[in-house]
Amino acid sequence: MEQTKFLLGEKDIPTHWYNVQPDLPEPLPPVLHPGRLDPVTPDDLLPLFPMELIMQEVSQERWIEIPEPVREVYKLWRPTPLYRAYRWEKALDTPARIYYKWEGVSPPGSHKPNTAVAQAYYNKMEGQTRISTETGAGQWGSAMAFACNLFDLECKVYMVAISYRQKPYRKSMMEAWGATIVPSPSADTSVGRKYLEEDPEHTGSLGLAISEGVEDAVTTEGTKYSLGSVLNHVLLHQTVIGQEMKKQFEMADDYPDMLIGCIGGGSSMGGFSLPWVPDKIKDGKDIQIICVEPMASPSVTKGLYRHDFGDAAKTGPVAKMYTLGHSFIPAPIHAGGLRYHGMAPIICLLNELGIMETRAEHQVPTFEAAASFALAEGIISAPEPAHAIKVAMDEALKCKETGEEKVIAFNLCGHGHFDMGAYDAYFAGELVNYEYPEDKIKAAQAELPEVAPEYQ
Amino acid sequence: MEQTKFLLGEKDIPTHWYNVQPDLPEPLPPVLHPGRLDPVTPDDLLPLFPMELIMQEVSQERWIEIPEPVREVYKLWRPTPLYRAYRWEKALDTPARIYYKWEGVSPPGSHKPNTAVAQAYYNKMEGQTRISTETGAGQWGSAMAFACNLFDLECKVYMVAISYRQKPYRKSMMEAWGATIVPSPSADTSVGRKYLEEDPEHTGSLGLAISEGVEDAVTTEGTKYSLGSVLNHVLLHQTVIGQEMKKQFEMADDYPDMLIGCIGGGSSMGGFSLPWVPDKIKDGKDIQIICVEPMASPSVTKGLYRHDFGDAAKTGPVAKMYTLGHSFIPAPIHAGGLRYHGMAPIICLLNELGIMETRAEHQVPTFEAAASFALAEGIISAPEPAHAIKVAMDEALKCKETGEEKVIAFNLCGHGHFDMGAYDAYFAGELVNYEYPEDKIKAAQAELPEVAPEYQ
Repeated sequence: MEQTKFLLGEKDIPTHWYNVQPDLPEPLPPVLHPGRLDPVTPDDLLPLFPMELIMQEVSQERWIEIPEPVREVYKLWRPTPLYRAYRWEKALDTPARIYYKWEGVSPPGSHKPNTAVAQAYYNKMEGQTRISTETGAGQWGSAMAFACNLFDLECKVYMVAISYRQKPYRKSMMEAWGATIVPSPSADTSVGRKYLEEDPEHTGSLGLAISEGVEDAVTTEGTKYSLGSVLNHVLLHQTVIGQEMKKQFEMADDYPDMLIGCIGGGSSMGGFSLPWVPDKIKDGKDIQIICVEPMASPSVTKGLYRHDFGDAAKTGPVAKMYTLGHSFIPAPIHAGGLRYHGMAPIICLLNELGIMETRAEHQVPTFEAAASFALAEGIISAPEPAHAIKVAMDEALKCKETGEEKVIAFNLCGHGHFDMGAYDAYFAGELVNYEYPEDKIKAAQAELPEVAPEYQ
Repeated sequence: MEQTKFLLGEKDIPTHWYNVQPDLPEPLPPVLHPGRLDPVTPDDLLPLFPMELIMQEVSQERWIEIPEPVREVYKLWRPTPLYRAYRWEKALDTPARIYYKWEGVSPPGSHKPNTAVAQAYYNKMEGQTRISTETGAGQWGSAMAFACNLFDLECKVYMVAISYRQKPYRKSMMEAWGATIVPSPSADTSVGRKYLEEDPEHTGSLGLAISEGVEDAVTTEGTKYSLGSVLNHVLLHQTVIGQEMKKQFEMADDYPDMLIGCIGGGSSMGGFSLPWVPDKIKDGKDIQIICVEPMASPSVTKGLYRHDFGDAAKTGPVAKMYTLGHSFIPAPIHAGGLRYHGMAPIICLLNELGIMETRAEHQVPTFEAAASFALAEGIISAPEPAHAIKVAMDEALKCKETGEEKVIAFNLCGHGHFDMGAYDAYFAGELVNYEYPEDKIKAAQAELPEVAPEYQ
């Protein structure tokens, strides 16, 4: 065996984020106001987000400088390693060369702080004292709690009630970083109180938690709202992943034939793959870019490419994306970070143009793949990137059949230390697959907003 | 801020372990047979350990080559980073320069695999097919499960019953690496059955789990036993930590005034500090080496320096060490890895000779210090190294008073992702300190074996 890890130094932490927008073959469709259904203005967004992030959302600059205080925080865990999976290749008996980018080394345990830190910084710079946000499984809430603490901002996290009860240790982690966490629906907002009156034991949903976070931000002095995925600026901040990886592939004297990552809102996949898009569409490199989503929430493979609300309560902006319908509630798969009805508009456009492709996977096979990977490489993956592991394994096994020496790279965007209950269920044979919920999706898609032709 | 992490490449993984024995000012006292109470022979130990480890236990070679397959596994996480704790220094407002060696990046989450991998390798080379071991809080069992899997050995872990029930996720992690875990006492050994007959709900103890592991090894074909601390060869394997750190301090163009680490059995502290001992005793460097133990199990600060059994059932070798008495059961502090009545003989001799010193700390202040550290540096420490963090903080605050710019280095030997319940208790104000249990210790120390003067 030769080199296992390709490690960069702190001086190799990117100085700029890569903005794919000027390199897209066609511009992104306009984002619409949820009430008016005409294009949003910066003023519409200012109650929710700091101006710098609003500008990044629509920027056509290819490179956006990373503020020095953000790079200083990145040093706490970046650059992250790129691994060659020698042991797993051997276990799979494949001629493929498999690499994985390991984002689980951050203190919160995933890629999420790459943007949380940037968002906290801009809020601080623009005079905010407090951030409200929501979290499902807890990865995003942990990252935001971590980031707010480092920039001396208060942080209020509305955590989907069922996760709050099932994952007490994610909550403890956020508390260790000084955040305040309440189960959603909570008594702290009017929308929360409304749902609690209907059902004091309400288990909550991501859409409802977003509504509480948004209400908190617009009604509380010094507070703005923060979102962990979907938006262009979130994908932008994540591009440190793919930029580092390009340098690391140079170190390895190799080049990927395929890039594989999971998609829930699309931020980890964007950060991992967007820096490679110019290689493909400008330099003509033959890279296959494969998104992997859960069969229980198959936004891209089964969604409509239409404008839809980002949240169930219809309070956030309306974007054109593959959507299952904003009222769709996915089955309770363990990959909580992938339970979203829509998808990042950038990921959607690139899929629509054939620059990316997407596959949907069932839950049990993703755990089978993650278990195979853990035995070989030692790392216990979060349930979300287990979807990428599954497709990487499929492709490696195809190479075994064909004899092709393909170079497969996947994004291992978080560890599973707070998801061991899911592994327990898997080893006990108690995990189930959820069939593609066609009727529920059709019903939810019937509620898509009617958008004027000129904005579609 | 300048460089935050000092990172080495894979070529910097040490090629040899450092054996302190030839550099000790006087030889270690003999280890005795538990029945005969005269010096053990290799033949006495062979039912338990492979010959190579028995030879390492008494070796007088200063450098012992690390087998290439062991170094290959080390590449999965080594070299580990040395961090400069800029943010914590600022939070403490200290002129001290604080560094920490971060061993929590290994897949099992601590320093333990440094020796688990070596032990698995030698057992495999000598034809074993299976290893039995015990675990308390689960760090060691996880490391052994991880290591056995990589060398294709079966692994049976006897896990202290109360931990088995309280920490189900550590068990899940071991299962993910293919190990078999039973709560101890178990029905799988005669000693286990004996205790279960007395009390079917027995909560177990480390001493009892060791007895089950030993019985399993001596009664099962192809099986040997493995211990995660205390023994000389275990400390030897851990010296990769301190060797890397010496190179990293050169990169930082700095040199430590004090080295601080927690001690339970003494292996992480040995690995962290022993490579610096020649600097102190040969080159006359003024390094303070400070061990930190829990007040609830104060082996070095309150123990007798006498020969004693390593386990409650008196089946293992008898070594000269600071001991609270082999029948002493420490209070249920969350730092499960520090609940041991004895201590590594090497650590004891170096304390006796004044080359190391030891302090005992109460539980609550160690969590206060770990919480301060997590806020500043982001990393959530395991309860064991929280003891080192406490003393590092004390020393940094002393520097604030005196204005001294001391260089403080501590060993952050594991993460706390599986210990969040302990942080919950701390934040809820429910953690307690346990007073120094003088009467229980006196009673246990009354049972020390009588050893002939020529062996003392």
